[in-house]
Order: sequence, then C-alpha cells, then structure tokens
Amino acid sequence: MLAVTILGNNSAVPAFDRHPTSQVVTTDGTSFLVDCGEGTQIQMIHYKIRRSKISHIFISHLHGDHYFGLIGLINSFGLLNRLQDLHIFAPSPLQHLIELQLKVADTVLPFNLHFHTIRNEGVLLDEEKYSVTCFHTNHRIECYGFAFIEKKKPRRLLPEKAREFEIPSHFYDRLTHGEDYIKKDGSVVKNEWVTLEAAKGKVYAFCADTKYDESIIPHIDGADMIYHETTYLNNLAERAAARFHSTSGQAALIAQKANVKKLLIGHFSSKYESLDEFEKEAKAVFENTELALEGVTYRV
Amino acid sequence: MLAVTILGNNSAVPAFDRHPTSQVVTTDGTSFLVDCGEGTQIQMIHYKIRRSKISHIFISHLHGDHYFGLIGLINSFGLLNRLQDLHIFAPSPLQHLIELQLKVADTVLPFNLHFHTIRNEGVLLDEEKYSVTCFHTNHRIECYGFAFIEKKKPRRLLPEKAREFEIPSHFYDRLTHGEDYIKKDGSVVKNEWVTLEAAKGKVYAFCADTKYDESIIPHIDGADMIYHETTYLNNLAERAAARFHSTSGQAALIAQKANVKKLLIGHFSSKYESLDEFEKEAKAVFENTELALEGVTYRV
Repeated sequence: MLAVTILGNNSAVPAFDRHPTSQVVTTDGTSFLVDCGEGTQIQMIHYKIRRSKISHIFISHLHGDHYFGLIGLINSFGLLNRLQDLHIFAPSPLQHLIELQLKVADTVLPFNLHFHTIRNEGVLLDEEKYSVTCFHTNHRIECYGFAFIEKKKPRRLLPEKAREFEIPSHFYDRLTHGEDYIKKDGSVVKNEWVTLEAAKGKVYAFCADTKYDESIIPHIDGADMIYHETTYLNNLAERAAARFHSTSGQAALIAQKANVKKLLIGHFSSKYESLDEFEKEAKAVFENTELALEGVTYRV
Repeated sequence: MLAVTILGNNSAVPAFDRHPTSQVVTTDGTSFLVDCGEGTQIQMIHYKIRRSKISHIFISHLHGDHYFGLIGLINSFGLLNRLQDLHIFAPSPLQHLIELQLKVADTVLPFNLHFHTIRNEGVLLDEEKYSVTCFHTNHRIECYGFAFIEKKKPRRLLPEKAREFEIPSHFYDRLTHGEDYIKKDGSVVKNEWVTLEAAKGKVYAFCADTKYDESIIPHIDGADMIYHETTYLNNLAERAAARFHSTSGQAALIAQKANVKKLLIGHFSSKYESLDEFEKEAKAVFENTELALEGVTYRV
C-alpha cells in the first residue's frame, strides 16, 4: 500500500499551527521522508511517526522551509543511537552544509550517512518493489519533484485452472511472470487462461515548489495521486508567478491536464487562515481534490 | 524590570512536549533571545512573544539544540519584512554557517544582520541602562554563559527635603547622581539628607551547558537569579561529567556557593518524563529553586 502522511502543509513562515513542508511516503514497509522543514522531528513525535523507520530522505530544494529541520533530525538520530544507514537525496551543497554543522559540534554519528547529490532528472532509486524518480520543477532555485512508483506485482495464479490444464507446480512461478505453458504434445496453454492481471503499481508524485508549468506533466501523467503546491488563490496569480509559486486553480489545471486520479494541495501561504477557498477553487477545475492536512494519511 | 521567559527547557532530543534551549530576557523594553534551538520561532508564536522586539541574540555554543532554530528565525524575519538591525553574538563559525545558508537559498535579507563573534570572556554590550557580559563554561566544545546586568539607577530625590535646604532645582539632577550641595555660605548639604539610595540593578545569569565547575562562580556571584543546566539527577553524576553536563544537586551547589538569590533549573534530559525529582534534589541543597517551565516568565 502506497500512502502519504502530511507533517507540514504551510509555506515559508509557520502560522495558524501549520508547519513548513514535510511528508512521509510509505510503501510496503519502507518509509521515505520528503522535505524536512523546521520542526519536522517534533511533528513526527506528535503524530507518532516511527522515526527509525525512515531509510531515505528526499529534499526538493534548499529553501529553508524545506530542509531546516534536517540537521536536527540527523542529530537526534545520532543521540538516539540509530545504527542503520540513512540515505539523503538532495541538490548541492546540502552535503557540505550538514557535514559542516556536524563538524563544528564535534559530532560523530553512530550510523552511515550517505549523500546522493541530485544533479539532474532521472531515476534515484530502483528497488525490487518500487522506484523513485525526480524531475525539474520551475522554481527560483534548483528544485526537484519526486515520483514514487510501485512496481507492477506478479500476475495472480488461478490454481484450479492451472491444475485443470495439468501444468506442473514448479512452473507456477513462471506463470505469475506472464509465460505461456507448452505441453509435451506441443499445445500451448495461454497465460491469461490460468492467471489474472496483476494489480497495477500505484504512483504518487510530489511536485515540490513550482510556478505553473506544464512541462512537469509528462513526469506525473496518469499518476494515482499527486501533491501540488498552491501558495495563493487565483486572485494573486501575478504574485504567485513572481515568486515561482502556483495558485489553487493552477494546481487543479495541472492535475486535470495530467489525467491524474487525485490531487492533494498544500504549501499554503501564511496570509490565509482559512483554507476553504483553496479547496473550492481547485475543485471547480478538478473535482477529486483534497486539502493536505497535517497528521492525515492519504492512501494512494 | 528584568525577566526571563522560557521557550525550551529540554536537552538535545525533543521529548514530552519539551523543546530545546531558548529563552527571552527582557529589560526595560529591550528583548534578548538567548539560544535558539529548533522550533524556537514556533514557540514564540505559541507563547505570543513579539518576534519583532528581539534586537540581540546570544548563542552559547554550536551544539544543535542551542542554535538549529536560528536560521529559520532569521529567514522568517526576512519574509516578514523586518527592517530593524539584528545583532547576533556567537562563537565562530556561526556567521559562516548562516551566510552560507542564506546564499544557497539566494536570500537577501531586508535588514542588517550584524555578527559579533565571541572569542573570549568579557563585555559584549554596554548600554546606558544595562550591560551584557559573557564567561566560559566547561563544556565539550567552546561554550559561553551570559550575564545580563541592569545598571544602578540614579538616587531617588526627596523634593520636600531639597526645598527645605533651599537647593535650586537645576541642581536636582546632580543630586540624583550622588553629589553633595554646597551653599553660598560654604555649608554642606549631604546628599543622603535629600535623596534615597537607588534600587540596585538586577542581575540574571544564564549559565549555558556546563559540567560542575566552580570557576563560573566569580561571574555569577550574588546574582539575583541564575539559570543553571541540570541534565541529570545525582545518581547519574558520572554520566553527567562524561558528557560535560551537571546534575540537579550540582546546579544547586553552584547557586549556594555563588550566593545567588534564586535558581532556575532546566535542560532536562529526554530520559526523564517527570521533573519532580529535579526540583526535590535541588531544593534539598538550595531552597529557592524553581523548575524552568516553558511559557512561564520568571521575574528577576
């Protein structure tokens, strides 16, 4: 099951008990942290996220509201005697910054910290059950979105059917991987007669900070769920563009054009106390929109 | 009035809704921030501290639980269009770290940020109504405590007495500064006949992170209130010493030996949920002890 839990849904300055960007993506027992604004570790405690479960951290860009909480989290991992490796994917020079902060504190971590500097679009992780890719977004500084892609599972075997066609059980594994079975007399048992289509792997894309830019669409096309920032409402579209941010209506338009199934919106400006208008504005364009609310888990 | 408001009273890893070190010292309309652990700006919002009032920030040392919140606060000051100057006193290389973080985010602040690198004990600020000094504490890395010293106010004039001795009013200001008045006939009006002793300026000392070390006593001797760390209880005195921290009993012993009037204790280890034992242990040695509780203002 692919799911995302929101830890912070506000833009830069914390306000109205909303926190800077951070979310936890989970798939099949693995937890990824996406962005890590100040106070993320405190939000994790608050929402009972098991910090030790986090194996990979993805940082979209080096504006503070997306990474100022990272050094504190790393530091706490050290003090809590974490032993398992931690992988961080981020643009340069995050590695230098973190290493400098550890050095001035004379801190030696008890676990291995692996930095993977993102320099371009592409595949960041390719594991048996999932992959993670990144793509450029259009922001004031170098910035990346991330797509979490569950791999297609094996086809589902229909054991009665397989027995009916007298297929030996040692071939069952090959059936779930799509092979036909050829009997000794040369006749063929078509794979689809004895298996069912596997459930399609789900896709979740975090679109980071970005101004309205359709060039991200190929990277999120047909995704089951995307998170798109919406710092302002449409009436401040000019300000949004000037600051390389999006409006709620623009986020919805991207969702619509990319044929995604569901849209989460967040990164709300601190000038808005109520979020009702964000939801209303987006839903008018793309009905299956939800506000990304802190502490809530959205199943993809 | 000199007072301190506690924003964070926990040691390194946040726990039990306690936060890393930060406190606001106020005197006569001026607000100083002392240390700035992660989440300090959020605590300021929570406890309705006017962030814009902060003119000077003092950072004791570069362990993360004492400064990881600083870059976020500075960043927010920028986004909130602060215009007034901000002064930061801290050991090296904090200036380099902050400037690097601003640079990678391509952030230009709308106000002047003045760094004052602390390199030794001495006077940091000497203003008309107060001074701030710093002193070494005994910690794993370079670390400073800070003393906030209200200057003695002018003596209080007794106008009826002054008129009785026929002292001209243009001399009143000199009376409040302690001068005797010499009449035309050469007779002397003693200052103490026409004025009262000024209230003594109050002193508050923040003793930062430190192991038990009596060498700080001359710097806090007779202070009206001190804050002394107490990371552990006495039964973990060995661990405290090994980690350059103090126990509650040790903090109280310092308060007693330094003849201070009141002791605040904080920087509690995350291993303790209840703080009752800290209070009990300290009070057995030094009765006028209070737990430093978040959100509470202690008047010096």
